[in-house]
Amino acid sequence: MTRGTGTGHGSGNGPGNGSGTEDRRTDPFAGISPPARLAAPDEAIGPDELALATRNHGLPLEAMRYAVTPAGLHYVLTHYDIPAADADTWQLTVRGRVSSPLTLDLDTLMSLPAATQRVTMECAGNGRARLSPRPVSQPWLLEAVGTAEWTGVPLRTLLAAADVAPDATEAIFTGADHGVERGVEQDYRRSLPLAVAAAAHPEVLVAYAMNNAPLPPQHGFPLRLIVPGWYGMAHVKWLHEIVLTASPFTGFQQATAYRYRRTPDDPGEPVTRIAPRALLIPPGFPDFMSRTRVVHPGPVPLEGRAWSGQAQVTRVEVSYDNATTWHSADLAPTDPAHPWSWRHWHTTWTATPGPHVLTPRATDAEGHTQPTIQPWNRGGFGNNLAQRVEVVCLPT
Amino acid sequence: MTRGTGTGHGSGNGPGNGSGTEDRRTDPFAGISPPARLAAPDEAIGPDELALATRNHGLPLEAMRYAVTPAGLHYVLTHYDIPAADADTWQLTVRGRVSSPLTLDLDTLMSLPAATQRVTMECAGNGRARLSPRPVSQPWLLEAVGTAEWTGVPLRTLLAAADVAPDATEAIFTGADHGVERGVEQDYRRSLPLAVAAAAHPEVLVAYAMNNAPLPPQHGFPLRLIVPGWYGMAHVKWLHEIVLTASPFTGFQQATAYRYRRTPDDPGEPVTRIAPRALLIPPGFPDFMSRTRVVHPGPVPLEGRAWSGQAQVTRVEVSYDNATTWHSADLAPTDPAHPWSWRHWHTTWTATPGPHVLTPRATDAEGHTQPTIQPWNRGGFGNNLAQRVEVVCLPT
Repeated sequence: MTRGTGTGHGSGNGPGNGSGTEDRRTDPFAGISPPARLAAPDEAIGPDELALATRNHGLPLEAMRYAVTPAGLHYVLTHYDIPAADADTWQLTVRGRVSSPLTLDLDTLMSLPAATQRVTMECAGNGRARLSPRPVSQPWLLEAVGTAEWTGVPLRTLLAAADVAPDATEAIFTGADHGVERGVEQDYRRSLPLAVAAAAHPEVLVAYAMNNAPLPPQHGFPLRLIVPGWYGMAHVKWLHEIVLTASPFTGFQQATAYRYRRTPDDPGEPVTRIAPRALLIPPGFPDFMSRTRVVHPGPVPLEGRAWSGQAQVTRVEVSYDNATTWHSADLAPTDPAHPWSWRHWHTTWTATPGPHVLTPRATDAEGHTQPTIQPWNRGGFGNNLAQRVEVVCLPT
Repeated sequence: MTRGTGTGHGSGNGPGNGSGTEDRRTDPFAGISPPARLAAPDEAIGPDELALATRNHGLPLEAMRYAVTPAGLHYVLTHYDIPAADADTWQLTVRGRVSSPLTLDLDTLMSLPAATQRVTMECAGNGRARLSPRPVSQPWLLEAVGTAEWTGVPLRTLLAAADVAPDATEAIFTGADHGVERGVEQDYRRSLPLAVAAAAHPEVLVAYAMNNAPLPPQHGFPLRLIVPGWYGMAHVKWLHEIVLTASPFTGFQQATAYRYRRTPDDPGEPVTRIAPRALLIPPGFPDFMSRTRVVHPGPVPLEGRAWSGQAQVTRVEVSYDNATTWHSADLAPTDPAHPWSWRHWHTTWTATPGPHVLTPRATDAEGHTQPTIQPWNRGGFGNNLAQRVEVVCLPT
């Protein structure tokens, strides 16, 4: 580990403080970098949303059969481009309000004691395209989720080695992906409260492996932050810098994007932990185009996964009559080794000929549950409206 | 290798012959399995197309930087669901018009002499969403492509072992994915002319590895057909049966889907080999929402890949003025080891402030090139209309 000879409890210069370091030359981007907007009531998915949907992708829901999502099936959301990364020259720096700034190459980082965590990750925008009015952005339906085994160095190890100053309150994480968003040219950058960044439970990781292999490019090769229980925007990919600061980070992805707000002027609340959700593996077989499911009369095994970043999921119920009546499903036992992973659930439904709507619903230990009438916010974040699976049961 | 004790030059019963074996009970699926249709002139992407776009995914174009596409970045198109597959019990059968029917488990298959081929694969529907009127199906823009190293047993080895009958003319390949499409319940099934199936150049593979690892579930685990030079619909995933027949296969994916036709009644021509295409890695950096590219004035390196399933690509040109004038790009030397892989190309563009449209165009050794005015057919197949990359160069 290289200890820098920097300024110790330094000036806080650098990427930490929003408008000073994120280029706000709005004019040059006026024609190409639109403001946030809501779709009109009858407005279908536009070419911009389609371009995002064909680049990024969700988890095909039948892949919830795997407790750990195989490579390439975990959801991916890339704000800008996947950057080219050279493992041989990659460096992670830890600086700002620290006594001992660090600069670590990958070999050094990988020589430190490592931890592995199985983490269910979900995009904060999952469910956005089901909202009305629809916030115009990546148009997720329900599939922006995945569970992986992430291996890396606990962030608290690095913070201890850097000797964080007593007045530090946040850690700011910078990725190598660069672009413009709503007129703001930026590297992707997010912060965490120091209490979260340095915690042991859950333990934040600087991960270099996913499912026991080097990170794939689209998941942040060579380094990615992993923040168990938080929505995906916190898990900064292509991580190369950590800056400790004594003042709140006001960068675009913290203060402008990723806030629960009702109106454009509402300062809103920050998006943090994952709201509870249960998803059902759609039973039977699909129609190619409508994706409607087809089953035959009789017992139909149903299974899926359920998770919450707020507390352990304690109950999954399923409705077979479009969210009118509910039946308890069987939850797999809690696994102390994987407190941040989704839980498997299953039950059996007796199908009768005709159309049906199946709906699962999760509740966690703190009593958070899923709505069956849509919640709404301007960014389309944290929409855990219960799933609706349309099934047609054929005649006997 | 287990040699079956079957009927030798058998009856041809089985999945070979279309309507007798694909369930055409149209009525039960009437409300859920729509016919093929074209979008109205002003019709945006619908919920059905979005559901396909969030499940399937393309290659983020910047990932063309990799000669071999890393796991999870290669395009994926799944007609129905990714089936659950048990490697321990999986069997591949070869039967029909053969003297010695075969039943092989994976261990046996993997003990046979193997070959590896680097193959560029593209979905036949790539470019569909750029057509007007737009055929309603998986709404690809340009990104349904990828290149992988596939390892497996040459199909001609298996055909020789099965001793194909002199009157056999086609081989029919069945995957384990099951669904309904335009009212037809079916397993995914495609045929090849025997001359293609048994050829040495290109050599068709029964692949069990992709990029030196077992096939991922979404790419056909445990077995997938690889047909170098052909569009993706020929590369049957989750392959478990090969039937030799003496008559043309009339199954849905052969006789109804995947045909170049202008009208619903046109019998059309079959979709086979990949038309030439060059793609440019979009230069500079993107706006998140519009995906418009931003560059600074001065020299801008441009690079990309070009391929054709019809003949070697011999020329790539680039236009910087919306397909008005053309400039030759530098093509990487041909690589005799990888005749079915895309070729790298590069050039340098001098950007001046303002908006620009960049367009690459490939031409192959047989003189096939890319149109700059859209071709059109009802299925939206083989649309190799040249790419348009919108770039804004900032002021000096």
